[in-house]
This record gives sequence, C-alpha cells and structure tokens, in this order.
Amino acid sequence: MTDVDGEEPGTLMAGEIADQPRVLASMLARAAEFRAVADAISLRRPRFVLITARGTSDHAALYGKYLAEIELGLPAGLVSPSSMTLYGARPDLADVLFVAVSQSGASPDLAESLAVARECGAMTVSVTNVEGSELDRAAEFPVRLGAGAERSVAATKTYTAQLLALYLLLARGADGDPASAAAALPDAAAATLANAERVYAAAARYRFATRLVTTGRGYSYPTAREGALKLMETCYVSAHAFSCADLLHGPFAMLDQGVPVIAVASPGRGGDAAVPVIQRLRGTGADVLEVGVGVGETGLAVESAGLAERLLPILEIMPLQQLAWRLAMDKGGDPDRPRGLSKVTMTR
Amino acid sequence: MTDVDGEEPGTLMAGEIADQPRVLASMLARAAEFRAVADAISLRRPRFVLITARGTSDHAALYGKYLAEIELGLPAGLVSPSSMTLYGARPDLADVLFVAVSQSGASPDLAESLAVARECGAMTVSVTNVEGSELDRAAEFPVRLGAGAERSVAATKTYTAQLLALYLLLARGADGDPASAAAALPDAAAATLANAERVYAAAARYRFATRLVTTGRGYSYPTAREGALKLMETCYVSAHAFSCADLLHGPFAMLDQGVPVIAVASPGRGGDAAVPVIQRLRGTGADVLEVGVGVGETGLAVESAGLAERLLPILEIMPLQQLAWRLAMDKGGDPDRPRGLSKVTMTR
Repeated sequence: MTDVDGEEPGTLMAGEIADQPRVLASMLARAAEFRAVADAISLRRPRFVLITARGTSDHAALYGKYLAEIELGLPAGLVSPSSMTLYGARPDLADVLFVAVSQSGASPDLAESLAVARECGAMTVSVTNVEGSELDRAAEFPVRLGAGAERSVAATKTYTAQLLALYLLLARGADGDPASAAAALPDAAAATLANAERVYAAAARYRFATRLVTTGRGYSYPTAREGALKLMETCYVSAHAFSCADLLHGPFAMLDQGVPVIAVASPGRGGDAAVPVIQRLRGTGADVLEVGVGVGETGLAVESAGLAERLLPILEIMPLQQLAWRLAMDKGGDPDRPRGLSKVTMTR
Repeated sequence: MTDVDGEEPGTLMAGEIADQPRVLASMLARAAEFRAVADAISLRRPRFVLITARGTSDHAALYGKYLAEIELGLPAGLVSPSSMTLYGARPDLADVLFVAVSQSGASPDLAESLAVARECGAMTVSVTNVEGSELDRAAEFPVRLGAGAERSVAATKTYTAQLLALYLLLARGADGDPASAAAALPDAAAATLANAERVYAAAARYRFATRLVTTGRGYSYPTAREGALKLMETCYVSAHAFSCADLLHGPFAMLDQGVPVIAVASPGRGGDAAVPVIQRLRGTGADVLEVGVGVGETGLAVESAGLAERLLPILEIMPLQQLAWRLAMDKGGDPDRPRGLSKVTMTR
C-alpha cells in the first residue's frame, strides 16, 4: 500500500525518528548561535519567564519551564494564549523573557501572543523550525532548530530539537558550558534508538488497549505528556498523562488491570520521587512498563552515557516515539498521516 | 446497602453538591474579609502571580491564572512544586504574589513550596477550607473558604468556593465592586442545580462509555478539566480534557463515534471561540453534549442570571458534578469513597 505521495505508511515518521542523532549533532555544532541568544538573555536580566506553545511544542515548553525555574532560578509560567488573543489582556511585561515554541511558526495565535508580548515590553524569543515563518519574523530573537523538513504529522525530531534548543538557551553551566555538557547526546541518542527491537516487542501487549496512562515526575513529566500525545495521535488510544504527584489526586481511582501504565523514571530527583508511586501502582496489580535509564530487562532502556538528569528528557521520549510508531503500524494505521489532523494547526 | 460510616453510597457528595448555593451566599456575606486581602494585594503591587495546587484545586488555580492575566493584567504561572521541593530552586520572588490553593491545607509539598516562596520574598496567600492547617499557618495572608466540612473524597462545594475566593481576591471592578457583581450567584447556582433531572437523563447514555473527552476554551477550560477529573475519580472513566485549541493538535485523531465529547461553552469570548471546534466535532459524527448558558434542549443548561463570563465557571461545573454523581450511582459505585483514593493526599 502506498499513499498519495507514493510513500509507504510510516516511512516519514520512521525516518524522522532515526534522524534525531544527526539533528542533535548539527545543533551542537551550531552551539555558538544559541550561546549568543543565551548571553543576550543574561544581559537583559529578566525577572520572569513566560513560555507559550501548543500541542507537542507545549511539552517542550513545560521542559523549558523546569529549566527556567531550576537553572535560571526565575519564576516561570506557561502562557494561555487566549488571555492575550481572545480576552485582550495587555500585561506589563518589562523584565519578562517571553519564549514562543512552534515547529511551523505558523500558528496565528502564537504569533499574535508574541507580538503583543513584544509591544508590552518583553524580550521575545521564538523557537521554530521554519525560518521566515510568521512567528520567526515577529520575534526580537528568532532561534531556528535547523532540523530539516519534518513531514510526518506526528512531530518527533523537532520535539527533541526544541528540547535541546531550550536547554542551550536556558541551562547555565554549574558544571561547565552547557553545550560541552551535552556533547555525548548524539551518541546516546543513537544508542537509545538501537534498542528498537525491545520496544517493538513491548508494543504487542498494547495491541488492543484502548486506554493507557503515562506518568513521570519533575524533568520526566514532559516526557510522559509527549509520550501520551504520540500514542493518541498515531494509535487513537486514550492515553492520559499525569505527574506522579497528581496521579494520587483522583486519577488513581480509574486505574485497574485494564488500564496499562507507562512510567518514565530515570535516576535523579524526579525519578527517585516517582519510585514510591510506581511501587504503589504495582501493588494494585496495574500493568506498569518503566522507561528510563537503568530500568532493567523488563522496561524500555534509555542509554544516558552519563548525561545529567536535565538532559535525559531528550532521550527518554525516543522509545515512546518508537512504541507509538510500531503500535500504529501493527494496527494497520499510517502514523505519518493520522486521521483528522494536519501538520499546521490554525487556531486563534 | 450502607457503608462503614452508616451512610448510603453517594449521600455525602449529593449533600455537598446541594450545599453550594448556601456556601456561595455565606462567602459573599463575608466579602469584606476577601476585600481586605484584595486590597493588600493592590497595595503590594505585585508584578507577577504564581499559583500552586494539585488535583481539583489545580483547576481552581487555572481559573485564578486567567483572572490574574485578564483582570490584574499581570503575567501569571502555575508553579511546579517539584522545582522548589525536589530540585531545591530558590528563585527571587520579590514583587511576586504567590497563591497556594488546597482544600485540606495538609499537602506537605504545597506548604513547603509556600514557605520557600515566602523566604524568597513573595507575598503569600493560602486558600484553604481548614483553618489552622499547615498551609493556612504558613501563609502571610491565610484565606479561608468557610465551606463547612467536605467529607466526600470527590471535592464539589470546596471547588466552587475556591473559584469564588479567587474571584473575590483577583477580580477588579471594571463594572463595580466584584462582590456586588456576584450577588446573583447563589440564586443562579440554585436554579442551575434544579435542572438535575435533565442531567440525570443524560447520564444514561454514558453508562457503558469507558472513554470520554471534555473540552472548553478560555474561562470554560478549567471547567472542562475539573469535569473530567470528577468523572475519572467517581466513575473510573478515562475522561480527558483538552482546550478547544489543543484538541486540534493531536487528540482530534483519537475521536470517533465511540468517544463521546462534553463541550463546555457559554456566550462569551471563550465560548464563541469554541463554536467552530464544536461544529467540526459534530461534522465528524462525534457524540457531543454541550454544557453552558443557552445550550437549548439538547444540552445541560446553566442558569446564568445575567452574570459575567468570568463568573460562569462557578456554575458550569455543577451539571458535571451531578452527572458524575449520577453515573457513579448508576454503575453501582460509591462516589463518596472512590477506590484507591483518600481525601488528603500526602505528596512531596
């Protein structure tokens, strides 16, 4: 079976997943570009950080929020674009760093939010994969992923590229230059992706699951969110992400042996805090699959190459991308072109 | 069938849902108390608002974020408690208003976050239902709901009380004093709750649904989130909330005629923006139930008594509380005591 573009289903997404080590390496080779914007941020000495995004990019934004809070020591928030677009809010944004993240840079509400933020005095940074896009043109500091074209509707390589871009912009070098501290990333990504057969074997157990829960804490929480979205958009599973802490406030009730759980946890402060929640889940008889560094034979292993916890989100998502792709293929779908979706979503 | 406490299943939640007009009226009678804290906030002239909460209270926090952005014209963010508790971030919070929302006031991570925020220079406000709780004692400005004891694990009256408290603290009187502008609220709540039979009839159609999506935009988005949580915790349905804007970024793919949608939309800027999304959903053949003001015979009607859009979240959740209660009872469950949950969740 080939589609209208003459490609087998899943070809685009598989190729873009496999392209990630190359993209990460090419970004690290351009570290000076990111460093220039990071230096401009330091010079401007913002007091607050606001990040805006939608869909997959919103999970990158959440990662950026953790970085801003932990690395820059600044209060940070994810902006509701509707406050400024629908409701016309015009906040005083002097001393504010405003970051908009979008693969296409074409979503009108994000470009409008950023333009309003700039009028209101914010330092504006866009992170897009499309030079010359509306968002790219609107920002004072346009940052480009340079990931190459992404044609699958389900974003993969641009997600990990967004994470790395935010890391290079917002991480500070307690342990030296951030780019140097990330040097092992492309090789670690290749090693993680090489575990694909294990991931594909795990996909079989979800063949008839209609519901699924993902969970993680701290830096791994954005991964749980993005993993759930990948499964939703490519496999049509009701995949629901919760922080390990929120899981105990309500959602825990709906879990039973018919709702499998994917828990993202690597050694580190977030992963350590997830351990008791995972134990409690197992205690209820829930089906739990762990994803992370050092999860052993039963989980989906991530190869960290000794990278710091704050860099692991760039790797932890990879087995979940592979899982979503394999499961979509097993179900006879086309992960490149999920029903009802288009690559660029036009909302205001 | 009676439980260990000698009460029929669902008695507590039903009583607490019905108690809401009284609670709202009693809070409006104490408007001066809230006004005093609102005035203190105005005097302190914060530049940024951070709100922290978990579970149901997190949906109240999201409402507070919209109020801060739109009414106070201040950038606002929902805090990840883990940044300060697990990762030890110590941000500079001078000029920051930090609000922690919790029914019990007993969650250790929230109290710790607030204490750290206070050390870091923030003006701290707690919103709890338990005077003398850890959070209540930690805050510079402790605000009490005074909703009376809430014994059902599924929070109802304390949620609407949290919304009203945040409204009284953060709304500004473009159209006069906020408390006066809310005077019709108790009667509107009673009139909305009086539509219970229509809600109960609607519950029947979800008897065997295992998945469900809720959606809303702007001020109605917290309602979509909280409605989904009520259905999850009392009926064990995988209920998933999306802002109307995010729904088109991925989740749309998983919707088919087997996944019913509950759309919260009343006239106003949020509801108006939801209209095209609801039309698109209907176009795909999805089963859509509308909740809001003026939804007509086929939806779940909310009686607004002419209240402003920003107050409607306090009413819009009520039919969804009734729906969750009825569906849990129809399924033979006990919405007062969902399996696996306790009223106070202890996370760090």
